Amino acid sequence: MVEDKKISMAVIRRLPRYFRYLSDLMKLDIKRVSSKELSERMHITASQIRQDLNCFGGFGQQGYGYNVEYLYNEIGRILGTDKRFNCIILGAGNMGNALANYENFKRRGFDIVAIFDVDKEKIGNKINDIEVYSTETLAEFVANNKIDIAILTVPNKKIIDIATEVTNLGIKAIWNFSPTDLRLGEGIVVENVHLSDSLMVLGYRLREKED
Amino acid sequence: MVEDKKISMAVIRRLPRYFRYLSDLMKLDIKRVSSKELSERMHITASQIRQDLNCFGGFGQQGYGYNVEYLYNEIGRILGTDKRFNCIILGAGNMGNALANYENFKRRGFDIVAIFDVDKEKIGNKINDIEVYSTETLAEFVANNKIDIAILTVPNKKIIDIATEVTNLGIKAIWNFSPTDLRLGEGIVVENVHLSDSLMVLGYRLREKED
Repeated sequence: MVEDKKISMAVIRRLPRYFRYLSDLMKLDIKRVSSKELSERMHITASQIRQDLNCFGGFGQQGYGYNVEYLYNEIGRILGTDKRFNCIILGAGNMGNALANYENFKRRGFDIVAIFDVDKEKIGNKINDIEVYSTETLAEFVANNKIDIAILTVPNKKIIDIATEVTNLGIKAIWNFSPTDLRLGEGIVVENVHLSDSLMVLGYRLREKED
Repeated sequence: MVEDKKISMAVIRRLPRYFRYLSDLMKLDIKRVSSKELSERMHITASQIRQDLNCFGGFGQQGYGYNVEYLYNEIGRILGTDKRFNCIILGAGNMGNALANYENFKRRGFDIVAIFDVDKEKIGNKINDIEVYSTETLAEFVANNKIDIAILTVPNKKIIDIATEVTNLGIKAIWNFSPTDLRLGEGIVVENVHLSDSLMVLGYRLREKED
């Protein structure tokens, strides 16, 4: 078993992608894969793949390749896909709705247990069977339920206040969809989703192709 | 001026993030920044920052730091923030709605000019002043308007058919929100957005903190 502490965050950030590709290979009943084959599928250099997967010790063998199932299970274990996390969504707008309907999250161990909004018209509705509550009841809800992650899809001008409130209630992890990069001190982990970053990379690659 | 060809895709993928931070510094009227200060703000090692920004030649000077405005402009030029791209969204569901309402895209040069859906109830509506058309009129629309990028928010079971149709119509870039990784041959650039990757990293970091 791998000692997780040795793995850098840069590698960790690539692991979900390896995990997806290995999952595809397993569905195709492929037992072994070389770094060259993975490289062609994933558009990562074979040398980068070998370097990344080196962290996992010697189970990639020269001329023999990686054991797909073992690697899949090991990466899954490190990513904690066997763990479950309770999540709440703050903001029942379009993005909140889209996320509440994303079936992938549950499969990956993330259960969305409640949605909060200030809009009286939305309170009491259900989105994908998840109830929308008034933000006024947030403190009480968090006191009575173990909540691991707050998913923030509130308007940008409210983001700092909401993030502060949520962390004051003891929630330790925030998934932030506002354009503001949240920094909330040592005890809180934040992943800021910047959709326009990905779009800018697409624009760059398109121009490069056309030049 | 920097020779763009020297910059690797790994660095390119980090540029939008530098661009955002530099934009924040400019708003604060900060003229110069050291790799150490950027490191503290961005949670990237100073050595990684120096290595990344080395591609831009010698404008980070020892003990003097980077010229914020120059670096911002140069990165913006490489990313092509002065260029404009015409985009269409396929799928007027929650994610399509959320993206159509994202004000950041226009500021970054991406104009969403039309939305397409099969649902008769949605056709003719406007989302953030952008009209929803019938998918039946897609070919005609693309023939009459220069479309650079197709943003796909259609159900996963339709994604291959829609991506094939869109590329057959001559669109060269796809921003894909379905869980399926699209691979469409050499001439087409694709950015696959996998929201659950980011959530899995958040879960990992949360567990690491709690261990």
